Amino acid sequence: MPPGWPLRGKRRVLATRVFGVDAHRLVSPRTGAEHEFFIVDCVDWCNIVPLTRDRRVVMVRQHRYGTGEETLELPGGMIDASDPSPLEAARRELLEETGYHAPLVEPTGVIAPNPAMQSNRCWSFLARDVERVGEPRLDGGEDIEVVTVPLDEIPARIQRGEICHALVVVAFAYALGLRAP
Amino acid sequence: MPPGWPLRGKRRVLATRVFGVDAHRLVSPRTGAEHEFFIVDCVDWCNIVPLTRDRRVVMVRQHRYGTGEETLELPGGMIDASDPSPLEAARRELLEETGYHAPLVEPTGVIAPNPAMQSNRCWSFLARDVERVGEPRLDGGEDIEVVTVPLDEIPARIQRGEICHALVVVAFAYALGLRAP
Repeated sequence: MPPGWPLRGKRRVLATRVFGVDAHRLVSPRTGAEHEFFIVDCVDWCNIVPLTRDRRVVMVRQHRYGTGEETLELPGGMIDASDPSPLEAARRELLEETGYHAPLVEPTGVIAPNPAMQSNRCWSFLARDVERVGEPRLDGGEDIEVVTVPLDEIPARIQRGEICHALVVVAFAYALGLRAP
Repeated sequence: MPPGWPLRGKRRVLATRVFGVDAHRLVSPRTGAEHEFFIVDCVDWCNIVPLTRDRRVVMVRQHRYGTGEETLELPGGMIDASDPSPLEAARRELLEETGYHAPLVEPTGVIAPNPAMQSNRCWSFLARDVERVGEPRLDGGEDIEVVTVPLDEIPARIQRGEICHALVVVAFAYALGLRAP
């Protein structure tokens, strides 16, 4: 098993509203040499597979600035310091982005979005019997359309590339499981 | 369908060996207001599910600086400018990290690691009949142990959180498919 790499020091080289970047100086236990790695430091994230009683998934279409394209995603976002738990953060994001309330929520898994260069985790949840209770409440930087998609169509939409956000695919992989090889 | 957000300008605020960070000034088509978003700019990545003839997956254990933990991952990495294609990049990474050669490689899918704040894609592949032809060739910043895992165990290892890298789960989701709901 590879040993850990001792941390000799770190310094913040960039701070933005959504993430910071830290330069870590680490020592290779194999060679003794020092290497510098840049780590994107984000708070933890969450996302949720919200199922209606008629087996539809409540999803969001939005323009994404990273890829410059429209995506079909699950509700989710940053876990705020004011959220009592990751589960409550997921419930809050669902309500804010879609106007749906989730009475029954269960955790399905926790993933590292990119352990090579990010320190954070994304917590995934599954909600049943979600119901529309109001309008979405979007902040100025959001621009979201709510759509519902039959659960049965999800595997094919992933295989076709229509659902193409890694963390959304992971949440569905946790909720549905992978096919036995 | 949400309209695109016009780009009013961008500037590079950080450059590292593995990624850069750009500040994009975008205009909301809904409110007309200008918002600044920070985008992590990386080259495209690749990963590969390498299957031996006896249905084992060739994987790598390594210490990851982002999370500070050891992970069990698929071979993969950055697609270099000198790689003839994403497929050849995946074959090269497999050989370098594990010493296995992949005679038969097929593309399985392309994912956006994080369309909210990253511009790049990760290309996933499936290789059959891989064979060990030599020793791994690691660079100074890598410290990798090669292990083989029965393909049948992969879904359970993902559900248990033993495989916890989002892009690795995505590659297995593409290679195996999700269970029908």
